[in-house]
Parts: sequence; C-alpha cells; structure tokens
Amino acid sequence: MKFISFLWSTVAALALCALLTPTVHAADKKDSMLRHVVAFKFKASASPEGIKKVEEAFRDLKKKIPQIAHLEWGINNSPENLNKGFTHGFILSFKSEEDRSAYLPHPDHKAFGALLGPLIEDVFVIDFWAKE
Amino acid sequence: MKFISFLWSTVAALALCALLTPTVHAADKKDSMLRHVVAFKFKASASPEGIKKVEEAFRDLKKKIPQIAHLEWGINNSPENLNKGFTHGFILSFKSEEDRSAYLPHPDHKAFGALLGPLIEDVFVIDFWAKE
Repeated sequence: MKFISFLWSTVAALALCALLTPTVHAADKKDSMLRHVVAFKFKASASPEGIKKVEEAFRDLKKKIPQIAHLEWGINNSPENLNKGFTHGFILSFKSEEDRSAYLPHPDHKAFGALLGPLIEDVFVIDFWAKE
Repeated sequence: MKFISFLWSTVAALALCALLTPTVHAADKKDSMLRHVVAFKFKASASPEGIKKVEEAFRDLKKKIPQIAHLEWGINNSPENLNKGFTHGFILSFKSEEDRSAYLPHPDHKAFGALLGPLIEDVFVIDFWAKE
C-alpha cells in the first residue's frame, strides 16, 4: 500500500512537472518572438568613451522599458567583411507588435536616441517575427 | 504514514524536475551564443518563386550543417524605414567560432550562395558574441 501510494504521488508530481515545463518552453520559444535587429556605424570622430556610453545606455533600456522581453548585443567579429562599417549589433525581442509600438516612442528610447545622435553615422534596423 | 510517503515522493519527484529544468535553460542561454545576423536585399527582377526558394534553401541549411545550433528568420515588418531595402532577416547561432569556421566554407553553404547570387542585390552580415 505504501508502494502504491509512492507510485501514485510520484506520478502526480511528475504530471505537475510536465504541466509546468511547457511554460518554460513557451517563454523561450523563439518563433513566437518579434525580433528587432539594430546595427550601428559610429562616426570616425566618436570617442571610445562615447561609444561605451551608447552601449551601456542601450543595454540599460531593458531595465527601463518593460515591453522589451529580451535584449542582447555585441561587437562585430565577422570574418566575411559584409558589415559595411557597422560595428555594433543589438537584438531586442518583443512579445507583440503592441509592445514594439510602446517601445519606439517611449521617452527613455527617445532619450537614448538623443545621446546616440551626435556619435552615429548610420543605423540599420530590420524587424521580423522569427520562424524556424 | 501514507501522507509522509506522499510528501517524500513528491519532494523527490520535484527535485528531479528541478534537476532537469536547468538543462532547458542552459540550452537556451543566449549570452553563450555567437550570433550571425544576415540580411538580404533582393533584385527588383527576383521572382516571388525565386525568393521562396532562397528562403527554403537557407532554412534547410540547419538540417544539413550540424554546426548551426539555431536558425530563425523572417520578413521585415519594421515601421521605422531604416532597413535600406533589405527585406529578409536571418539569425544563425553557433556555439563556437570553430563552428562558424566550419559553416562558412561548407559545401552546402557554398551551394546556397550559388542559388542566391543571381537574385541578390546586397547582403549585410554582422556577427557577435551575445551578451545581455
């Protein structure tokens, strides 16, 4: 009887586990996310300190704008030389087009744009609903 | 006693669940991946059928080249008009620069390039180790 009780409760607990696990997957499911890919080409006159401020300010938008579901970035290291002088890549992810619509005119995003403006030579942006 | 047995096995099963869940998270941990962002601008003469073949052939590289850890893509829908005529975005992920080095000259990647060449006006590529 004790063994049956053990079996029963193990099955119940594993069922609960199975019920919770898909939530993790759904949250990480990449094809359900709207990707917002941004690349920066800085002016030759932009100082390393100025560029660092831009990197930090963009990264910090994740803390200020809750509609940004995920933000990652890095410095170009492609050996293909197809980056057209762009050195910085950022991928922001949104759960909906409404969230992107809240982000674009957000005061903190606008403040970032004002910081970026004097240092930047060119900006490239492409957004897409990610599918596999 | 039955209740204690229930409690014990529930705790054991949930511990097993907790043990398995971090594996899911680790596999999806974005800041450990090398992102390879590619954008295409097609020639005005490229047919919808030709473009569809390119989309499918790029997507299918994931099945042919095991070094591609993840591949996602989509059609630009940015309202910002900063996409410079590029309509297609792809994000490939690699676990190492060695994997990227195996991908770039891979015969299946070269065959894809030969299919792409006649239809494409411009290609943009930026790679980075993703950090948050």
